Amino acid sequence: MLALKRRILAEGRNLGRGILKVDSFINHQVDPALMMEVGQALADRFRDAGVTKVVTAEISGIAPALTTALALGVPVVYARKSKPITMPDSPYRDVAPSHTRGRSVELLVSPEYLGPEDRVLLVDDFLATGQTIAALVRIVRQAGATLVGIGAVIEKTFEGGRELLQPLGVPIESLAIITSMEDGRIEFAE
Amino acid sequence: MLALKRRILAEGRNLGRGILKVDSFINHQVDPALMMEVGQALADRFRDAGVTKVVTAEISGIAPALTTALALGVPVVYARKSKPITMPDSPYRDVAPSHTRGRSVELLVSPEYLGPEDRVLLVDDFLATGQTIAALVRIVRQAGATLVGIGAVIEKTFEGGRELLQPLGVPIESLAIITSMEDGRIEFAE
Repeated sequence: MLALKRRILAEGRNLGRGILKVDSFINHQVDPALMMEVGQALADRFRDAGVTKVVTAEISGIAPALTTALALGVPVVYARKSKPITMPDSPYRDVAPSHTRGRSVELLVSPEYLGPEDRVLLVDDFLATGQTIAALVRIVRQAGATLVGIGAVIEKTFEGGRELLQPLGVPIESLAIITSMEDGRIEFAE
Repeated sequence: MLALKRRILAEGRNLGRGILKVDSFINHQVDPALMMEVGQALADRFRDAGVTKVVTAEISGIAPALTTALALGVPVVYARKSKPITMPDSPYRDVAPSHTRGRSVELLVSPEYLGPEDRVLLVDDFLATGQTIAALVRIVRQAGATLVGIGAVIEKTFEGGRELLQPLGVPIESLAIITSMEDGRIEFAE
């Protein structure tokens, strides 16, 4: 997605150790128009997958997952990291180590909103180590739902997420694929 | 906003003690099409306020703030509840007691994305006690920005948020105003 890659080159900052700061348009400040394009582009790649629900993890997955779900005409569910008092006592739950926070986070989804009838597209802002998405995959399994695809806004190929998730046998689509962040640069695939 | 009120009556659950569960379309599962209507409706009410930035708090403010910002053609900034490694060392910060979580939460905004030139519309899912929004107001002040309005998806008038915020002298707009949740009912204004 050209507009996204241009934006990453213009505003993204390589903070070293594989950390890409995109806080000015994705992760803290969000550009809603770009996010609509992102959602449209991800939806286009899964148009024929029969998606009934987009699932993501709070927090930074919410914006791209919402716009993807909008474009697909389905609801979005975001896994919570702590249990609100409105959530039933026995949610689906799993744990993912968080790269950018240096600790593990629990992900919780209410059985009210995910079940065996669902065909799930997982969407997140980053596909890096793949650990968060892998935890969401386990939650999809707990729900007895069918995973039909994985979509990410930005992928960092050098952190192994795709290798981790490829055995699932579902399409994995990323809109901007970064192959290297060595020496302060940001290099895209192709 | 009629579609919103109808949805609240159809799917909202009065859990007692003033707690309204809207997890099936706003707070855990989100209906993106409804959220687009919400954003359009909030934007319409602040169309002439010269808004340059919509500000909200993670987590459940993100969806309505994103769609409002989209409709206004401005960026949205969501205050973080913990500091990501990509955030500079001295963010604007304030603390809000959380009604639904039973503890205080810190809100952090990077000075990179909020400054004296900004005219800020605060958006959140609920206006209840007003404590979260009051904390965001203090962050807006720390940034030297101008607060131009406050928008909420759902207001519960019986928790005093409007009284707390009214002295700020800016318009406060809510799309569904609930005046009573006594005896398991949900009653709207008008």
